[in-house]
Amino acid sequence: MKPVKVYDTTLRDGCQAEHVALSVEDKLRVARRLDDLGVAYIEGGWPNETNPRDQEFFQRARDEKWTTAALAAFGSTRRGGIAPEDDSNLQQLLASQAPVITIFGKSWDLHVTEVLRVSCDENLRMIEDSVAFLKSQGREVIFDAEHFFDGYQADCEYALETLWAATRGGADWLVPCDTNGGTMPLQLQDIMQVVADEFDLPLGIHAHDDAGMAAANTVIAVQCGVEMIQGTVNGYGERVGNANLCTIIPDVELKLGRRCLPEGNLAKLTALSHYVSEIANLPHNDRLPYVGASAFAHKGGMHVDAVLKTPDSFEHIPPETVGNERRILVSDYAGRSTVLHKLQKLWPQLKRDDPIVKQLLAEVKQREYDGYAYEAAEASLELLAQRLQRTLPELFKLHGFRVIVEKHEENGQPYAEATIKLEVNGATLHTAAEGTGPVHALDQALRKALTEKYPALAKLQLTDFKVRVLDTTRGTATTVRVLIETTDGEKTWGTVGAHENIIEASWQALVDSLIYGLQRQIAKGQDSSDSPPGSNHIPPTSAETDS
Amino acid sequence: MKPVKVYDTTLRDGCQAEHVALSVEDKLRVARRLDDLGVAYIEGGWPNETNPRDQEFFQRARDEKWTTAALAAFGSTRRGGIAPEDDSNLQQLLASQAPVITIFGKSWDLHVTEVLRVSCDENLRMIEDSVAFLKSQGREVIFDAEHFFDGYQADCEYALETLWAATRGGADWLVPCDTNGGTMPLQLQDIMQVVADEFDLPLGIHAHDDAGMAAANTVIAVQCGVEMIQGTVNGYGERVGNANLCTIIPDVELKLGRRCLPEGNLAKLTALSHYVSEIANLPHNDRLPYVGASAFAHKGGMHVDAVLKTPDSFEHIPPETVGNERRILVSDYAGRSTVLHKLQKLWPQLKRDDPIVKQLLAEVKQREYDGYAYEAAEASLELLAQRLQRTLPELFKLHGFRVIVEKHEENGQPYAEATIKLEVNGATLHTAAEGTGPVHALDQALRKALTEKYPALAKLQLTDFKVRVLDTTRGTATTVRVLIETTDGEKTWGTVGAHENIIEASWQALVDSLIYGLQRQIAKGQDSSDSPPGSNHIPPTSAETDS
Repeated sequence: MKPVKVYDTTLRDGCQAEHVALSVEDKLRVARRLDDLGVAYIEGGWPNETNPRDQEFFQRARDEKWTTAALAAFGSTRRGGIAPEDDSNLQQLLASQAPVITIFGKSWDLHVTEVLRVSCDENLRMIEDSVAFLKSQGREVIFDAEHFFDGYQADCEYALETLWAATRGGADWLVPCDTNGGTMPLQLQDIMQVVADEFDLPLGIHAHDDAGMAAANTVIAVQCGVEMIQGTVNGYGERVGNANLCTIIPDVELKLGRRCLPEGNLAKLTALSHYVSEIANLPHNDRLPYVGASAFAHKGGMHVDAVLKTPDSFEHIPPETVGNERRILVSDYAGRSTVLHKLQKLWPQLKRDDPIVKQLLAEVKQREYDGYAYEAAEASLELLAQRLQRTLPELFKLHGFRVIVEKHEENGQPYAEATIKLEVNGATLHTAAEGTGPVHALDQALRKALTEKYPALAKLQLTDFKVRVLDTTRGTATTVRVLIETTDGEKTWGTVGAHENIIEASWQALVDSLIYGLQRQIAKGQDSSDSPPGSNHIPPTSAETDS
Repeated sequence: MKPVKVYDTTLRDGCQAEHVALSVEDKLRVARRLDDLGVAYIEGGWPNETNPRDQEFFQRARDEKWTTAALAAFGSTRRGGIAPEDDSNLQQLLASQAPVITIFGKSWDLHVTEVLRVSCDENLRMIEDSVAFLKSQGREVIFDAEHFFDGYQADCEYALETLWAATRGGADWLVPCDTNGGTMPLQLQDIMQVVADEFDLPLGIHAHDDAGMAAANTVIAVQCGVEMIQGTVNGYGERVGNANLCTIIPDVELKLGRRCLPEGNLAKLTALSHYVSEIANLPHNDRLPYVGASAFAHKGGMHVDAVLKTPDSFEHIPPETVGNERRILVSDYAGRSTVLHKLQKLWPQLKRDDPIVKQLLAEVKQREYDGYAYEAAEASLELLAQRLQRTLPELFKLHGFRVIVEKHEENGQPYAEATIKLEVNGATLHTAAEGTGPVHALDQALRKALTEKYPALAKLQLTDFKVRVLDTTRGTATTVRVLIETTDGEKTWGTVGAHENIIEASWQALVDSLIYGLQRQIAKGQDSSDSPPGSNHIPPTSAETDS
């Protein structure tokens, strides 16, 4: 079976998504990663005078070396009533010097008469002329038949006529598009089968997800004989989005058994997905198929038990195939095997019947009842185990803290201050700091007190701070859970605190985050100051959250 | 054509999602909304001794009146080697008094031998016995055939045998499940067709989204004759999630033309989707099909132009069909029509060119940029409009507050105290109160100061308190949004505050919640104490959040 070509339009259709805006430099970085992944085409944008950013992209992209990917410039057919060589849009596509030009034309008569406001015959000439002109300039030409499936249902003959027009013009590819994303899979199958029977040219598919069908429609099109799949990384795109390449590439490779990427490259997919969301400055969706952080996360006690016995019992593919990994979530749905699995990752020599396992299980269960959650706080779980085993060195001893928030007059700005008194190696430290809020003030004061003794603290940076109110029926008197994520630049870890007092909950998570980080620094011997007593007993740390 | 029944499992499978944890009260609130939407079944949980929360749910749900929905309790078949009446799991299902019991059994021989570790024959007896026993107790019994599609591909005869066992037991429904979510649509169609041909019992479908196919598989199953669709609100569920009811209900109603909900109720879907994400305290995904904020948002210049000429040119359905709305994004921070739409809901007589609209739009835009969100805080929006119009009476004047949290020694309990100084009708009130945490202390002090002047305050009860950290990249120095929900027993309203200081954000939401409630009480003339100045200018209040 021939491989299926991947056509990425993250840099064009993806940038039409709400919240997505990429600079030229961003686009180049994404393009390099796509080339490294091994896609066949990268649609860089619509280069014309209203999109100077896209013009610049093609200009700069010319100087780069592309290994697997060909760059494609996107644009519309010529305007009605003029010759293609007089159309500034087509001229600008050529000026981009992209080796591939993707031209879209209208396949739905509604659009021809209501939006373009030209005759149906003129529309056919616009398609044929434009394709022929671009071919005469030596480019590979892909014809995107916009609204093809809606058009087919409105007037099937006319929709097919538009494909014939592109064929007569010499197009290299015909790509029926489900532009509004409303076509149902079996409907798409029927129509695609007609197209595949009628045309000899290679076909592609461009699907949108407005009805949740983009992935299904893409897979079914491939089963009808389509050889090019268009989509975007993470499914970014106009409205709900496009077919997500991070879903459809593994679907086609692993479920249909058709190669899309050079061998071995599928395992780069999860990292690529995170990379693009970082560049776009959007949170990565944990629940994306294949590449999401939750895609192989197991929480239900029975599921966990089964997955540990037989991984494929609750996993449709091995997570490493797409560069992802299995995660066992410790939560109140979890049974003994969940906690044991976690502990064994920390201490591989640990046996199921070790008394510490039983003790820790009871402790975790009680703490989850009290509001703690260890799903995203593996560092706190590890410290809890160390505390139970009494192997955790005391980096400092708290004598007390006080947090004050004051406000004067209705429209006055509030003022937050924290004081803290600690003992480190016998020395008493008593200091104070301001902050934007009470937790920030406490964080500042704690760091201020400890930094002299532990300069490695400066390496630790809080990257996430989440607050969740539990049992909301009790209003402001309810328990609060605080999750903190911290990094030292190499690794990221999560910690948790829970209490009816939000300051206390934050304090717990904060202290855990710093102790865990300091232990890491001390274990690496990178801390040049005096080590705390007992630091030689620290077991190797291994809790890891994906960053 | 018969209507298709909707079976919701948000409260069971949905709660197996990472980050989703609902209290009993949360579950009841979600269930009431699902009943209002008009689903046929609500799966409340798995009531047994390891899930006391689910037991409590069924106990409390018994006292409620359910209009369209029947409650279903979920559990497994009996254990191997014992009689069904001796199985504590089945007994606890009966004890829940749910009229419907959904029992899952293994349809994949791998699971039978590797996970359950019983013989294939015993598994068939376990299914038949368990169903027959539950039927003998007068319940409607739904058989969920776990891993049916994977099982069918491993051993089609055995998979079908498990359905026959349930049929012999007297099951009312057979529901093949794509538990691992890896089945491709055309593959599912082939298998579902076999099942539909072989069995006379009504069929259902339960799909997971691990390969992005949950919606497609559900729709195709309906096209094969299935009469029950299982799913969760927003697709929350184990790993990647379940079929999203907010996608599949409109797919089946609008694309297949089969009714799922009572007439007119489809338009409640967008609000329901937001409501459940608020209850779960998870951000609502803008890119959900049909119900996401971006689902009908147009950014591309040509799309906007076309949509204004002919709405269905780039919209597969009219947004109002599902209770959503079109948004034209003039910039990345748009939402102008959203605000106008909200204002017109509050004051239907309001004209687009009223100067207050322009002023309020600008104010709301600025405030949303600063972190406020009025989606679930219409009371705050209404007060904001009154403040701009200067029609809001001043119930009190703040001179200042101070909140202190102290802790002594590492394991000591923290102490929270608030002092507050206010002026009411010229009299200065200066008082203090303790609380479980800083916000509770502030709440107590404020009530203590005001109750003498406004005894109606005693009627107001805070029912929900949510904290969301925005821009998580800034650690503890980030902006915090606080949402408070309050009731006076007749009506429930939401208020919002946002600030880098969580105490200040809570204060804003708290003050709004009490002012809004007091206005209501005063307007009803139920407050026997002296009215504040200007109370006769209070416009009728109309903001309502669904409770």
